[in-house]
Amino acid sequence: MEQSLTIYNSLSRVKEVFEPLHAGKAGMYVCGPTVYSNAHLGHARPAITFDLLYRYLLHLGYKVRYVRNITDVGHLEDEVEETGEDKISKKARLEQLEPMEVVQKYMNTFHRNMEELNTLPPTIEPRASGHIIEQQVMIRRILEEGYAYEVNGSVYFDVHKYNNHYRYGILSGRNLEEMQANTRRLEGQQEKRNPFDFALWKKATPEHIMQWPSEWGMGFPGWHLECSAMSTKYLGEVFDIHGGGMDLQFPHHECEIAQSTAALGHPSVRFWMHNNMITINGQKMARSLGNFITLDELFSGNHPLLTGAYSPMTVKFFILQAHYRSTLDFSNEALVSAGKGLERLMKAIALLEKLPVSPSASVDIAALEKNCCAAMNDDLNSPILIAHLFEGVRLINLIGEGKETITEEGLDRLKNLFRVYLFDILGLKPEESSAAGSETVRQLVDLTLEVRSRAKNNKDWTTSDFIRDELGKIGIVVKDRKDGTEWEMKN
Amino acid sequence: MEQSLTIYNSLSRVKEVFEPLHAGKAGMYVCGPTVYSNAHLGHARPAITFDLLYRYLLHLGYKVRYVRNITDVGHLEDEVEETGEDKISKKARLEQLEPMEVVQKYMNTFHRNMEELNTLPPTIEPRASGHIIEQQVMIRRILEEGYAYEVNGSVYFDVHKYNNHYRYGILSGRNLEEMQANTRRLEGQQEKRNPFDFALWKKATPEHIMQWPSEWGMGFPGWHLECSAMSTKYLGEVFDIHGGGMDLQFPHHECEIAQSTAALGHPSVRFWMHNNMITINGQKMARSLGNFITLDELFSGNHPLLTGAYSPMTVKFFILQAHYRSTLDFSNEALVSAGKGLERLMKAIALLEKLPVSPSASVDIAALEKNCCAAMNDDLNSPILIAHLFEGVRLINLIGEGKETITEEGLDRLKNLFRVYLFDILGLKPEESSAAGSETVRQLVDLTLEVRSRAKNNKDWTTSDFIRDELGKIGIVVKDRKDGTEWEMKN
Repeated sequence: MEQSLTIYNSLSRVKEVFEPLHAGKAGMYVCGPTVYSNAHLGHARPAITFDLLYRYLLHLGYKVRYVRNITDVGHLEDEVEETGEDKISKKARLEQLEPMEVVQKYMNTFHRNMEELNTLPPTIEPRASGHIIEQQVMIRRILEEGYAYEVNGSVYFDVHKYNNHYRYGILSGRNLEEMQANTRRLEGQQEKRNPFDFALWKKATPEHIMQWPSEWGMGFPGWHLECSAMSTKYLGEVFDIHGGGMDLQFPHHECEIAQSTAALGHPSVRFWMHNNMITINGQKMARSLGNFITLDELFSGNHPLLTGAYSPMTVKFFILQAHYRSTLDFSNEALVSAGKGLERLMKAIALLEKLPVSPSASVDIAALEKNCCAAMNDDLNSPILIAHLFEGVRLINLIGEGKETITEEGLDRLKNLFRVYLFDILGLKPEESSAAGSETVRQLVDLTLEVRSRAKNNKDWTTSDFIRDELGKIGIVVKDRKDGTEWEMKN
Repeated sequence: MEQSLTIYNSLSRVKEVFEPLHAGKAGMYVCGPTVYSNAHLGHARPAITFDLLYRYLLHLGYKVRYVRNITDVGHLEDEVEETGEDKISKKARLEQLEPMEVVQKYMNTFHRNMEELNTLPPTIEPRASGHIIEQQVMIRRILEEGYAYEVNGSVYFDVHKYNNHYRYGILSGRNLEEMQANTRRLEGQQEKRNPFDFALWKKATPEHIMQWPSEWGMGFPGWHLECSAMSTKYLGEVFDIHGGGMDLQFPHHECEIAQSTAALGHPSVRFWMHNNMITINGQKMARSLGNFITLDELFSGNHPLLTGAYSPMTVKFFILQAHYRSTLDFSNEALVSAGKGLERLMKAIALLEKLPVSPSASVDIAALEKNCCAAMNDDLNSPILIAHLFEGVRLINLIGEGKETITEEGLDRLKNLFRVYLFDILGLKPEESSAAGSETVRQLVDLTLEVRSRAKNNKDWTTSDFIRDELGKIGIVVKDRKDGTEWEMKN
């Protein structure tokens, strides 16, 4: 039986077989960051989740158009009430920069962090401020369809009217009547007919730095609109996959669905995918709780909650060890353990290159291949995939110890399996966090230990101890065993 | 006498003292790439020239807003006749991608190359396609001022009328009447009143992929317009410096001046700066001549014209060894020689860390400091600066050989001078082409040589030779000298 990729569709709430709209091609849109501060742990999970999806679709042979936006305007401090300053304008005021200097600075950091995490760049990375016309065109279309109204130079989406024809709340499972019964959000919202209406276009006061002319006067687009406008522009009126963090389901994605459906007359997304959140020692991550850890802090260890630095690949492996729809709790213990697991995997990869082959095999690589493929096809089940890779590690070690055997062809397949699943699909890579990974360092340490071994044979204990002690000072720990000498670098 | 930065102003054709418009702040706009193919040698020179300017302005204490655009729409195949396909659309057709996928791909490569060349990113990097509204606003202003006319959904700049009030050709030293007398450009230009008129907005045919709505119908902006619109938006109606390659003086910068002056009623740029071109073995670089070398090819050596790979710092040093307004001819010999020069500099830097100090000095660091500063203040004269740094190298070597002396304070100043001029201002950096730069490698080799020295003291020539031979196999060449042992890594 041929295996097919199944994806859990947040909209239908079941796993569905992924069939692309156009044979051989896949289109995916993922909500990217609002670039007003350094990328943090919360940015790493969607980035890694949808990188996994992108890499797997490429592996399956699809030509993938992967669009991930940069929000550089319209994201207000209070997302739900749609009040307060624009997040980027506020930072610009505090840092005494032009808003687009703030955007450039944090976009550059985000890109660097994404590269450190070895995630592939999207094929198109559109910016909200670069698509004002496209957003205005969509507003006009929604107005023409009768699902929006203009008040004092602002345009609001008419949720009530939309809900009469379509259903507002379809993604998040909410019901407008119930929501209205349970809300007290009315004060200061005089412009809105309904407290759940949301802005498509907001009138700008003169002191507002980012504003553009429109037929409704000077203003700026509402936060939800950019994704509807840019996904339609680059992926079409119907496209395959829309991804993002679970925290974006409501109101952001719900509003996206409403906007696109109102403008186009039909829904545009076939598969909605949402990654779950990361908690820190069991708590939600929030600036106010002091448990807000940026990726740079994580990689350098420079944060009071961290007992050490965690390399980008350790962080990535930690995230991939949980299924993307599961919650994931950050703790130093979990990260240390992820680092050790990754080290075991990478050590096995090194051993893999030196394994002896036999005329016949006692291990079954085909079964392993099938299991890895099945794990990925089951809604990108990376933790199960990793468990199978550890089964591969067990086989590698047994073959290395001479307790199992493998043929040359089997060994080629095993090497290929690790290359494909570990490097290409999971997107992990060997790290030279210390100089330990450097070939020259390895050769030099081996030479030094060879000289030491000669000294020991000559009973020259002074030289032997001198070498061990000096290596220790450099950070290289020497362990004498019965069957030889091992060494490792301290971190 | 206090030294001041002087800049050669291409507009006035003399060196002028740089005084910023706003005390303590400097604004600079530099024409960036049209991202439809890989960055080549021709992109490296403006990038490095204006990186040098940016770094020097930062060194002088200015708060710099450095805007460099990305052209992702409107650049037609024939820039002068304004005909042919949009360069990006054409590539999109050939590569079967969406135009913005082409843009993303080559923009990513450009950014990577710029990072390899250790140039600092601009503080704002606006894209033409992201500023359609701003360009439309400027067109409207030019139309209102009477310096443009609409024909069949396109808008053209009226060069003749502009020339009656201002002067078209002021930057490039051309004269409209003479140009008209010498041109035969008339056929197929029926829409234009004058062959030198240029498009501000072009009507798009339905098959044109990149197009936006406007009051003149669906279309796209002319190539020259983006720079006028984006420089005004991010730097204001008057700003300090505009830079670019000399090939952009006409028509691009000439048209920019005309647009901004027509719209604003006054010129907007105070200092125009242009870097000269790079030739390849004496010839202009052109795809048709087969001498078109991309930066990736240069760094990897993968091009028939190259006898080897040249590292990014070698390429950068080669470019900085010529003044930015001089022509510069690429040849393998010149690059090899630049690589050797850079190596001598970097070796001296390493020696600098180990120099002995004396109670009194025979060398004059103050004079060297003054000379370096004067070179940079003289229109960024990097080759003269480099000559002074080599004078510093000569002093370092003489002090190392005990033929000259330096005090502790003098040594600190000398170290600081190299840090400031070589690293901060020229933006060069040590390269780890091999593992030689790794601290761990250095420590390990030193330890091994220490063990070897002990063996020699014990007349254990076997061990001593073994260590030397094994180090040689790893690529480390040991040289025994009278006063000790030196080593270096083979490349």
